[in-house]
Amino acid sequence: MAMLTMMYAHIPATQAASAAARFPLIRSQQHQEAVLDHHPQTKTSNRTNRLAESLSHLLHLHIETPPKTDSPRFSNWNMFTEEKHSTPTTSPKEIISEKWRQIHGSKDWEGLMDPLHPWLRREIVKYGEFAQATYDAFDFDSFSEFCGSCRYNKNKLFDVLGLSKNGYAVSKYIYAMSHIDMPNWLERSHLVETWSKDSNWMGFVAVSDDEETRRIGRRDIAVAWRGTVAPSEWYEDLQRKLEPIGDLDAKVEHGFLGIYKSKSEKTRYNKSSASEQVMKEVTRLVEFYKSKGEEVSLTITGHSLGGALALLNAYEAAKSIPGLPISVISFGAPRVGNNAFRDELNQMGVKTLRVVVKQDVVPKMPGLVLNEGLQKFEEITGTLEWVYTHVGAELKVDVGSSPYLKKHGFNFLGFHSLETYLHLVDGYLNKETSFRSNARRDFALVNKACDMLVEDLRIPHCWYQLEHKGLVCNHHGRWVKPIREPEDIPSPTREAEAEAHALQVEIQSDYVLQSLCTANMKGEF
Amino acid sequence: MAMLTMMYAHIPATQAASAAARFPLIRSQQHQEAVLDHHPQTKTSNRTNRLAESLSHLLHLHIETPPKTDSPRFSNWNMFTEEKHSTPTTSPKEIISEKWRQIHGSKDWEGLMDPLHPWLRREIVKYGEFAQATYDAFDFDSFSEFCGSCRYNKNKLFDVLGLSKNGYAVSKYIYAMSHIDMPNWLERSHLVETWSKDSNWMGFVAVSDDEETRRIGRRDIAVAWRGTVAPSEWYEDLQRKLEPIGDLDAKVEHGFLGIYKSKSEKTRYNKSSASEQVMKEVTRLVEFYKSKGEEVSLTITGHSLGGALALLNAYEAAKSIPGLPISVISFGAPRVGNNAFRDELNQMGVKTLRVVVKQDVVPKMPGLVLNEGLQKFEEITGTLEWVYTHVGAELKVDVGSSPYLKKHGFNFLGFHSLETYLHLVDGYLNKETSFRSNARRDFALVNKACDMLVEDLRIPHCWYQLEHKGLVCNHHGRWVKPIREPEDIPSPTREAEAEAHALQVEIQSDYVLQSLCTANMKGEF
Repeated sequence: MAMLTMMYAHIPATQAASAAARFPLIRSQQHQEAVLDHHPQTKTSNRTNRLAESLSHLLHLHIETPPKTDSPRFSNWNMFTEEKHSTPTTSPKEIISEKWRQIHGSKDWEGLMDPLHPWLRREIVKYGEFAQATYDAFDFDSFSEFCGSCRYNKNKLFDVLGLSKNGYAVSKYIYAMSHIDMPNWLERSHLVETWSKDSNWMGFVAVSDDEETRRIGRRDIAVAWRGTVAPSEWYEDLQRKLEPIGDLDAKVEHGFLGIYKSKSEKTRYNKSSASEQVMKEVTRLVEFYKSKGEEVSLTITGHSLGGALALLNAYEAAKSIPGLPISVISFGAPRVGNNAFRDELNQMGVKTLRVVVKQDVVPKMPGLVLNEGLQKFEEITGTLEWVYTHVGAELKVDVGSSPYLKKHGFNFLGFHSLETYLHLVDGYLNKETSFRSNARRDFALVNKACDMLVEDLRIPHCWYQLEHKGLVCNHHGRWVKPIREPEDIPSPTREAEAEAHALQVEIQSDYVLQSLCTANMKGEF
Repeated sequence: MAMLTMMYAHIPATQAASAAARFPLIRSQQHQEAVLDHHPQTKTSNRTNRLAESLSHLLHLHIETPPKTDSPRFSNWNMFTEEKHSTPTTSPKEIISEKWRQIHGSKDWEGLMDPLHPWLRREIVKYGEFAQATYDAFDFDSFSEFCGSCRYNKNKLFDVLGLSKNGYAVSKYIYAMSHIDMPNWLERSHLVETWSKDSNWMGFVAVSDDEETRRIGRRDIAVAWRGTVAPSEWYEDLQRKLEPIGDLDAKVEHGFLGIYKSKSEKTRYNKSSASEQVMKEVTRLVEFYKSKGEEVSLTITGHSLGGALALLNAYEAAKSIPGLPISVISFGAPRVGNNAFRDELNQMGVKTLRVVVKQDVVPKMPGLVLNEGLQKFEEITGTLEWVYTHVGAELKVDVGSSPYLKKHGFNFLGFHSLETYLHLVDGYLNKETSFRSNARRDFALVNKACDMLVEDLRIPHCWYQLEHKGLVCNHHGRWVKPIREPEDIPSPTREAEAEAHALQVEIQSDYVLQSLCTANMKGEF
């Protein structure tokens, strides 16, 4: 078991000394300098690390750092990386149709988790990559008038991100706003004229294509919810207030529900709430494919805040579409509701698989103290309606298990990063064994937005960036921000029209199909 | 005249308050947070700003910040930038051949500086762009085995950087090392196996092509010296020790001379010193073009530390090639030597044009106190052999003059940045007038490696960056650092061979030319 330590900015003594030698005038600041030198991370990272420290001080939280000693080290990284570089990142896909219900959680993933079944592992990574897409395509540029939107339209999202291999097509984008004062979850442009002042792109609905449908044994509707990259900012601002959902005792976190349910006639993208948008599309798809006699499932995924929204979405879908197999695959998600919320989800048959990195702080939020651990005192305390509770099965992965990851220091952003999660799932075998040697996912992805990989791997930290921050040289020799392709500018009108058109095409093709079948049955061919 | 103020990290109160509101737990750190929030710069920038602050505290240095009030503001930035975006960045080039000696400084630029003659302005910017090339092409990646080298070979440098328009061809790269303990001027790889442990690419020699030669009235040999991006690190470490140069009383800064003169048989790239490399090439070129009966000039340029090296180079060239017109165009260069050094340069006819941004601290170094200002006390103090002295003519430009630049705060990196210099030269008219309205150089370039442009211009700070920090996705789907093209890997052997070959070709073509001429004279055609 990993040691529990209070461990903040950890600096090897030699580095501190060398930094001090370089800055003779500021020797008194040597601690701070050395940290800067050692973790040359972004503004956000420094900020969040500091905030996490303050927080853990305040709460006397014991933050786990990965064990330092028991990680295997390669003697020749050069040879190792060269070999890796010529290994494909994927292996042939298995047909999993006969076992799809278990993989979707019908038996609460019993017998599939320890050791982790390779079919389940692949599916977890697949949904995780959908969740990752909501970050990779998000416009974070506060100088862009499209800050807070998706950089690409739904028809090309998977192509641009290299996710077409998964065999899904995006059918709808989801936008969210919030009436509740929950600062810093919304990414906002600095500019006066922007695509939207209130809404952010918050995720998408996608459907498996025919080939993938055959492989996985049913038409799968996947919903991916975006989280926040630096979650400290929102979890700090959480009201820590439970609010009723449904007609019974179930309660959920006020701020999460606010994002899921808020709408305003004054906005362009949230005349309907995220909840209404997603439910309308999911309902439409379920009806459409069921009417064709297909088996249909709903799988909802999300990281961080996105994992919380996934659970609210699952609750609502289970209420409104009885009998639909629904599962949630969440990554680094915080607690969302109370015991009654969990119980209702269970009763409705919603299956939740929570992937948790042992060292990540976010899944411990909210309810650091007031959580399901108090249940054993239930006789004394009575029914704990006001206590946050995790739901479902947990897959716990450990930063210490991977030889690729740094073993020293407390890296708030790195421990919580979705790419760290996906890397650890890819290497996970069972509770006892460390990283499997035949893991194939590209380790370089881990450092996309953090600094977690050991230096010998030579992967720069936070490397996922646009050339020249998106500036291009125009034909006059001036560096300008290119005008966004009209098709990539979010437009509610065009999207509504496209939907109507798609529906039309589907109905028509359905009609053609039916005619053909009828003709066939009549022996007209 | 701009006000002289002691002004360090300046934060508007509103910003500090908003930052504090976002970080309720760390209100006590609000000052620091607000600075971070307001200047989201790089590690280096924070470090240098802090260092500059400490330094100015220590030395009671009055740092100038640009005046806040007298800068024109545009009412409609959108319209303004759109108009700019469709204006070419260059205007047609004038033939300056008849005036080339004055522009090269033969009359100490008298009558050309106030107002700044457009022909001179264009030439200053041209040489400044050569100096800028030494930064833009430098490999700063400490995870690269080629850290500290030029990313491109000499034949494609100008093409890649878009500088071919200037009509010069690079003939040789210069490498430097230092025996003197002057930490942090050398960029070093983290890796064990690297192209060089001791040397850095330090600049290049280039020659005007025939067309440019006709335009500027002589064959111009240009030498560009690389400086350091964050000069605080080296000027802090300067020994502040003057060392003799030449046979008389001239003395120059120990550390600068160390970089210019150091060599070691144990190294690959500095078996000869930077001094020997550059002098060998310049001598070769001068002899070659003189033997063809051409007029030849030498123009040496550099920014920051590179400006200091340019002066040492000019001194040596004047000593060893008498009669050659030599001028130095330096940007933000520190003082280099004493009065006797200056006097010798003057006697030998070396012309120096120092471009200085009023707010930049570096040109005040070394010799903040012990400088040429003490000359008026010479009767009391005697000959001041130990005092640092600037040489030549000064073109002083002011951050406050440009409507494009931020007017608040002390921005150490931004004030010193070469792109800020080039922007201000491009807009300079005379001492009284502010920025000329018909300046055409692309203002966006200013923010390449700093944060100096007003936010309305919507240019991201520090935008000059590689896509994904140079990682590319290979055909296995893995993100890897591509192997450098063999032709771009520095190789002393290949470079020596190429030189020998080039010489051969030149001699041959010269022979052919001579034969043709002889044939022509003999009337053989």
